[in-house]
Amino acid sequence: MYTKAELEQFVEQAKQYARYGKVADYIPALGKADPNDLSIAIYLPDGNVIDAGDTTHKVTLQSISKIIALALVLMDRGEQEVFRKVGMEPTGDPFNSIAKLEEVQPAKPLNPMINAGALAVTHMIAGASVAERFERLLQFVRKLAGNPTITYSQEVAQSEFETAFLNRSLCYFLKQHGIINEDVEELMDLYTKQCAIEMTCIDLARIGLVFAMDGCDPFTDEQMMPLDVARICKTFMVTCGVYNASGEFAIKIGIPAKSGVSGGILAAVPGRFGIGIFGPALDDKGNSITGMKLLELISKTYSLSIF
Amino acid sequence: MYTKAELEQFVEQAKQYARYGKVADYIPALGKADPNDLSIAIYLPDGNVIDAGDTTHKVTLQSISKIIALALVLMDRGEQEVFRKVGMEPTGDPFNSIAKLEEVQPAKPLNPMINAGALAVTHMIAGASVAERFERLLQFVRKLAGNPTITYSQEVAQSEFETAFLNRSLCYFLKQHGIINEDVEELMDLYTKQCAIEMTCIDLARIGLVFAMDGCDPFTDEQMMPLDVARICKTFMVTCGVYNASGEFAIKIGIPAKSGVSGGILAAVPGRFGIGIFGPALDDKGNSITGMKLLELISKTYSLSIF
Amino acid sequence: MYTKAELEQFVEQAKQYARYGKVADYIPALGKADPNDLSIAIYLPDGNVIDAGDTTHKVTLQSISKIIALALVLMDRGEQEVFRKVGMEPTGDPFNSIAKLEEVQPAKPLNPMINAGALAVTHMIAGASVAERFERLLQFVRKLAGNPTITYSQEVAQSEFETAFLNRSLCYFLKQHGIINEDVEELMDLYTKQCAIEMTCIDLARIGLVFAMDGCDPFTDEQMMPLDVARICKTFMVTCGVYNASGEFAIKIGIPAKSGVSGGILAAVPGRFGIGIFGPALDDKGNSITGMKLLELISKTYSLSIF
Amino acid sequence: MYTKAELEQFVEQAKQYARYGKVADYIPALGKADPNDLSIAIYLPDGNVIDAGDTTHKVTLQSISKIIALALVLMDRGEQEVFRKVGMEPTGDPFNSIAKLEEVQPAKPLNPMINAGALAVTHMIAGASVAERFERLLQFVRKLAGNPTITYSQEVAQSEFETAFLNRSLCYFLKQHGIINEDVEELMDLYTKQCAIEMTCIDLARIGLVFAMDGCDPFTDEQMMPLDVARICKTFMVTCGVYNASGEFAIKIGIPAKSGVSGGILAAVPGRFGIGIFGPALDDKGNSITGMKLLELISKTYSLSIF
Repeated sequence: MYTKAELEQFVEQAKQYARYGKVADYIPALGKADPNDLSIAIYLPDGNVIDAGDTTHKVTLQSISKIIALALVLMDRGEQEVFRKVGMEPTGDPFNSIAKLEEVQPAKPLNPMINAGALAVTHMIAGASVAERFERLLQFVRKLAGNPTITYSQEVAQSEFETAFLNRSLCYFLKQHGIINEDVEELMDLYTKQCAIEMTCIDLARIGLVFAMDGCDPFTDEQMMPLDVARICKTFMVTCGVYNASGEFAIKIGIPAKSGVSGGILAAVPGRFGIGIFGPALDDKGNSITGMKLLELISKTYSLSIF
Repeated sequence: MYTKAELEQFVEQAKQYARYGKVADYIPALGKADPNDLSIAIYLPDGNVIDAGDTTHKVTLQSISKIIALALVLMDRGEQEVFRKVGMEPTGDPFNSIAKLEEVQPAKPLNPMINAGALAVTHMIAGASVAERFERLLQFVRKLAGNPTITYSQEVAQSEFETAFLNRSLCYFLKQHGIINEDVEELMDLYTKQCAIEMTCIDLARIGLVFAMDGCDPFTDEQMMPLDVARICKTFMVTCGVYNASGEFAIKIGIPAKSGVSGGILAAVPGRFGIGIFGPALDDKGNSITGMKLLELISKTYSLSIF
Repeated sequence: MYTKAELEQFVEQAKQYARYGKVADYIPALGKADPNDLSIAIYLPDGNVIDAGDTTHKVTLQSISKIIALALVLMDRGEQEVFRKVGMEPTGDPFNSIAKLEEVQPAKPLNPMINAGALAVTHMIAGASVAERFERLLQFVRKLAGNPTITYSQEVAQSEFETAFLNRSLCYFLKQHGIINEDVEELMDLYTKQCAIEMTCIDLARIGLVFAMDGCDPFTDEQMMPLDVARICKTFMVTCGVYNASGEFAIKIGIPAKSGVSGGILAAVPGRFGIGIFGPALDDKGNSITGMKLLELISKTYSLSIF
Repeated sequence: MYTKAELEQFVEQAKQYARYGKVADYIPALGKADPNDLSIAIYLPDGNVIDAGDTTHKVTLQSISKIIALALVLMDRGEQEVFRKVGMEPTGDPFNSIAKLEEVQPAKPLNPMINAGALAVTHMIAGASVAERFERLLQFVRKLAGNPTITYSQEVAQSEFETAFLNRSLCYFLKQHGIINEDVEELMDLYTKQCAIEMTCIDLARIGLVFAMDGCDPFTDEQMMPLDVARICKTFMVTCGVYNASGEFAIKIGIPAKSGVSGGILAAVPGRFGIGIFGPALDDKGNSITGMKLLELISKTYSLSIF
């Protein structure tokens, strides 16, 4: 049904939009990316992978990691505890906004996909130390992707650790209001490592496939996370997955997806397949401009919207 | 599969929550409702209707009308024109908030389900006069429900017209920013009539069924609205359908639905059936507290979430 | 002490800044003003008037009228009633902002100098009809200025009445929250006439003199308003007199003053004299850019700051 | 003119309001204060001190220190540099609000009396190390008060350092936007020591006297700060001195004053005398409820308002 030739044609079309985007440059490691890069992989439950573009490129997860950390924490702590600290509502505000935390009482991040909420989620990753908590998360990522070689970029983690003043501001605000109670520097250490986990778009597609299959790895039949956890994650991917462009994304594309400022996108077409994309040219909301266009072309052509 | 007995049992369970809710009382006509009322109808594409509670009660559409007006206007004006005036993003703010209109530039309602956006949508209903525009909307509603006797409550329309100061405030704000350009009193006349259209929960369920069937009336095979229009409406029902509780609703229930302060809920289970509910006891966000509980019981029992 | 020659020199200096300003153009009548106009009058308690520039120009009061209406309403209703409906706090928001009304509970305009507060004040002007209330205000203005020929510009009043959508939005918001309860169109009629009262900068200076003399007309020895009313008005002129530039104005100039978008400024140097200025080139906050510069030169040269 | 007997009577009257207030309790050291304490000193330029209540009580400066640090920094850096980093506008928001920093572009604290602005000011205190900068500030305080024994409470400084999460949040937000660039922990060390400087209300009154005398110590005739610096500080004391109650304070009392959550108030009656007050029962905005009442009684009785 889906052919590599078709996919390559979509990639060419979507690449035209690279000129309207801009590579993230708040840390040098991200700024070096080529805005014209665009690669995609579709991972099918029968093991077939259809791809286009240079799929050997590695991309750091950045905000994509939020959805994986959420899945882990829902298993670690249970729905009830997680949603006592983080809300479920989408927001029209940018992902790094702090204003709403102050306006809404009690101070509770509106959802786990904005930075404040993601920090609260990472805070809840179980483990005796940052090292142990990160190791647990990394093992979970490797298992989801079926790739034990996945690791994180020390350069990216280090750069982000040194410049993440706004995230520290959010952490202290959350600490003031009792949402988190650990040492902020330790949490920042864990969070920046989490964001710096890197993989190819094929790995991303494989993780997307697990979500698409309700948390079940179709190759081992192992349930990697309870069905309810997979469902909750996919719901957030629809309502808040691509920052404050999520509403438009739901209307135009309608596929559960999570993006990151590195230009990566992880998407899950329920019951059918996973998608991984890497296109570092970003739009003004922080989503891959070529990646979003590519997803739109695929969704429209094959009627993939869940709505 | 679904029996009346089961449904009656769910209704009994959900009714227990009526005590935590409160009937809307900003106009006398709504304040007279009995908070313990709760009725539901499930309309199947084979023509079967399963119901529970007193389904002869009539309920005014209130905010439920927003989704029907949106469908009409998308046909009247096309996607492009509609979304030039109204956004697609969910918001963490209450449905009647004006602050965001001022903060976000240009002043454009974030989505068509908050009052500001709904007023802009009603403004776009085509027709030479308020009378003609309302007649077109009413005919559309009757056709969707397959019920030519549906009309509106003059008492409710009149009461709301006299007290809708906040909606007038929103209208003038939109007029200042060029989103609407008609006479505000005329728009209020049209909008309050639209909100006062009344029907039973069986009618609601039948309209929900049309959305569930991608815009097609299963009994006549007539496409009442293009598939894309039905899809867009269902998407908004998920991302913004129950005010600023939409995110939680998506997580816990996951069925496209639109609520109104009269206590009505219209829901569409894609490809399967429509649901109409009437339960006038409201929670603090303005949704039927018993109706939401009822939907949750049904969704969990039958795994109806689209996620 | 102050000579006409000196004043003319200050005017020349201040005029250099006209190029950085812009004449208000939301209604044609204001847009016709020449941005290079700049006139000033200083009215002394001994009856001497020192002036510079073309003082025959007439200027509509616009927001300057807010301070005069406040004085009248404090006499009509008393401090307690007035401040039950309007607050006393300065705000960092623009004069026409509506967001704060929503955020702060209960919805009460922060102060009588922002539009929302001024509308609530005008609402409180006593009288059986709009005509009678306006007549009372106009007589008060004439008495303060010692000029029975002062009237209002029907052209300006009419233009503003037709385009004041944002003020209507504020009015309906206030009506929703019970701050005002009269017909909005009537209040707009009264308010736009109030704003359209016009006079020369000599008249403005004479009114400023009355405030400077604690409410007493030095030529008749008549107390035009109680000392406390004059004091309250001067306090607001310092804390909120020039929109959200009031803090900077207090630091740099330190003279109680009220500006309007027509380019007028009324100032009161306590115990010494009144100042009237007309310079229609506005800065980005809506204050006369040349007028503010002129006041700064005078204040610094003669050490007129009250601080 | 002012007698101790009169003052004692005012203190008795004002004490009645203690029951409506609440002692600050976010750190144990402040929570131990007796809400019924109330002491006042009036320091005259002839060296006379009139007092009432137990004036041996020591009070930590808390926010009162903001005005003294501002004076020092205006001398250290000059007006231009200071106001490039901090604005001059009062705000209707609480003193510890972060939302406005995000909404207003560029991110610059609205004024030096809210916490964000005060942190930026303390950041600008000149010196090679925290120790040297604190020593310079402390020497300045001692000089202003003519009391070389003044020091700071290590217990209070330590407690605040350990719990100041919200101030750290503000600091990192400012650091993200380039307003401050030093290590946040160092700045917090300096800021919490600054807030913990403690003195009696007689010391406070003596410092108030220096401001009242335009920066000149009447006993040594030494100009402790340039006249312009004293004027700027007094202006902020009027427009933003008592948090978001400043507007009401200006209307009702009209004396330049700065309060702190310890219950201290420093006031300066221009050209006449300084006032120091200690009354730890706070109102809901964080000002001494009895102290404010006491100032109001004195201002009304002796017509001390500058307006």
